[in-house]
Amino acid sequence: MHHVSVPGLSGDRFAVIYSVAAENEASARQRALDICLEQTVEFPPDLLPPGDIPDHILGRLEAVEPQGSNRYQVRISYAVEITGFELTQLVNVVFGNSSIKPGLRVERLALTAPLHRAFRGPRFGRTGLRELLGVPERPLLCTALKPMGLSAARLGEMAYQCALGGIDLIKDDHGLADQSFAPFRERVLRCVEGVARANHVTGEHCLYLPHLAGPLDTLQERAHFAREAGAGGLMVAPGLVGLDAVRLLANDNTLNLPLLSHPALLGSYVTSGDSGLSHFTLFGQLMRLAGADAVIFPNYGGRFSFSRGECQSISDSTRSPMGHIRPIFPAPGGGMSLDSVPDMLQLYGSDVIFLIGGGLHRHGPDLAAGARHFRELVSVTQHST
Amino acid sequence: MHHVSVPGLSGDRFAVIYSVAAENEASARQRALDICLEQTVEFPPDLLPPGDIPDHILGRLEAVEPQGSNRYQVRISYAVEITGFELTQLVNVVFGNSSIKPGLRVERLALTAPLHRAFRGPRFGRTGLRELLGVPERPLLCTALKPMGLSAARLGEMAYQCALGGIDLIKDDHGLADQSFAPFRERVLRCVEGVARANHVTGEHCLYLPHLAGPLDTLQERAHFAREAGAGGLMVAPGLVGLDAVRLLANDNTLNLPLLSHPALLGSYVTSGDSGLSHFTLFGQLMRLAGADAVIFPNYGGRFSFSRGECQSISDSTRSPMGHIRPIFPAPGGGMSLDSVPDMLQLYGSDVIFLIGGGLHRHGPDLAAGARHFRELVSVTQHST
Repeated sequence: MHHVSVPGLSGDRFAVIYSVAAENEASARQRALDICLEQTVEFPPDLLPPGDIPDHILGRLEAVEPQGSNRYQVRISYAVEITGFELTQLVNVVFGNSSIKPGLRVERLALTAPLHRAFRGPRFGRTGLRELLGVPERPLLCTALKPMGLSAARLGEMAYQCALGGIDLIKDDHGLADQSFAPFRERVLRCVEGVARANHVTGEHCLYLPHLAGPLDTLQERAHFAREAGAGGLMVAPGLVGLDAVRLLANDNTLNLPLLSHPALLGSYVTSGDSGLSHFTLFGQLMRLAGADAVIFPNYGGRFSFSRGECQSISDSTRSPMGHIRPIFPAPGGGMSLDSVPDMLQLYGSDVIFLIGGGLHRHGPDLAAGARHFRELVSVTQHST
Repeated sequence: MHHVSVPGLSGDRFAVIYSVAAENEASARQRALDICLEQTVEFPPDLLPPGDIPDHILGRLEAVEPQGSNRYQVRISYAVEITGFELTQLVNVVFGNSSIKPGLRVERLALTAPLHRAFRGPRFGRTGLRELLGVPERPLLCTALKPMGLSAARLGEMAYQCALGGIDLIKDDHGLADQSFAPFRERVLRCVEGVARANHVTGEHCLYLPHLAGPLDTLQERAHFAREAGAGGLMVAPGLVGLDAVRLLANDNTLNLPLLSHPALLGSYVTSGDSGLSHFTLFGQLMRLAGADAVIFPNYGGRFSFSRGECQSISDSTRSPMGHIRPIFPAPGGGMSLDSVPDMLQLYGSDVIFLIGGGLHRHGPDLAAGARHFRELVSVTQHST
């Protein structure tokens, strides 16, 4: 076989830390070497032409460390050029085919400056979102318009009530798409109107964020419709429309709106525990790379199964150092109630978005009063801790 | 609370069959009722306004049946209107938030005519792809251009060799995106040229299918570039670019190319076994709804972990009745070798695409000879079974 040289390799490499199930170190090492092949050349190693392909293109095993019973942490580095500096191909290199192998989990991406530079990241981040809202310090409050089946007019009225009561971010429930009973455009117009009317009364800057859950070829059109109508941000579920859809919207200078990511259909990446993606990588690192300004995930203690530790790791990853890529807001929700606020403040600190949906309705039919109670409780709890 | 009526409900419902982990039937029933709420109204049931929302919008538990030790199969129906007749929202209703709950798996979609009609499905399907290739009966042969790191010129030469040896479908390895060492456009031009040159010699109709793995805003542009350059089809990985990207490409009348779906990053939906999506739903039902003409998945006995039974269920779902939505080709691959052909013919029948990548190179440096050997072996085995 002839020697092959690959032009344009800089020598820059990034790393991925995987956790692998293995009975002993030798077998962990073998699994790690399989990942090196699988995620790059996908080719019998003895048949690779000598030169840059085995020396640089092939993943490189950097370290193997025991991690507990029958688990090992392995660190593999990749040439930055194999990502093509595109988000879709980056995630492909990190976990494309290896996602199909059980007992193998991505724990953390260790990206380097050349890759960070390829991504804009969140347009607003924590500071930018606080500026939009005019809320410099306290935790932010968010609620969802629901239940599905209400008309656009009813949802708009609900948005008015919630904004009147002091909610900062009012989003569509993630089940609202473009159904006939509350079509996207009509819903956006009504909710924008409701929130604007309330802001006029309160003097605050509550934002309405419609859910963009439609076909890809309507995504930008719906996003721009929303912006022109006066929506203050957008909610996107990367599990439904693809992670790159978040990047596309975040990069759109004429759109210039904060993005809230929703975890619909992403659960399978994190529920198995020993395979998939870590909470840290999925809800923090990848969402920030894509450009979400806040990330919704199920809070511990609600009706989902995330542990307090997993939520802590998400919180950590929303602000861990990533070059120029801004810290974003964790937005824990999913069955949280007013009672959970004190412990959540303890865990997340005040740079958090409290997402309360059905629980707000539990307070009574007057949503504005429920929202005021929620805000007061957060304020009192914050100052007493 | 006032009675709420929801206009436009037809009464048509579709169903989803889930498998849930539960200690007894009462607890399975409770989990099922949770799914009914979670996937629709996401609201405290006692606070729902009376009328159409609890009566029609809310998911409806249709049946609970024991399925083995601590597993129950539950059937839940949903009003077709809540999908908005969009693929993104359909998958959201089927499994959006429930994907975050462990021990809960989608076994099968039981869609009805109104939903089938909302989707075009595969443009070619089994019959159409056979017509394009001029191969009426025998199994189809497919290989991947690799390893990553080779230049576009080298990949083009490899495509020539493989086509000369009688391969029907030549696709990019899924790790090829738009890297500097083999940029998308140059690669397409070289590989199209190689395949055309071989077709001129053989008189056959081998197709080249480049991998569309780029940013969403380049997807259609790259697809049309490929078509104009003479590519015979496209490969898309819905885990990387979103399932709806497949639909978008399949629906494009001016593109009019067969689509091959790749499982990169989809593994986490199926590896846990007791949660996620079934092989039947993910690789058959959803790919057909989206419009893939053939679906790549890891064959049993290779370096991945799918069982023979799981591969059988994928094979079944590529041709199960789905209204007007065409049957598609199963394309088992991933570490298969020439030795596995006989048993695979037994399992898949002759309406199958044999995908052999690295194993073809194992035959020796003359790829055309390796391809001829592969084709002969399939032909001999087919006629001897």
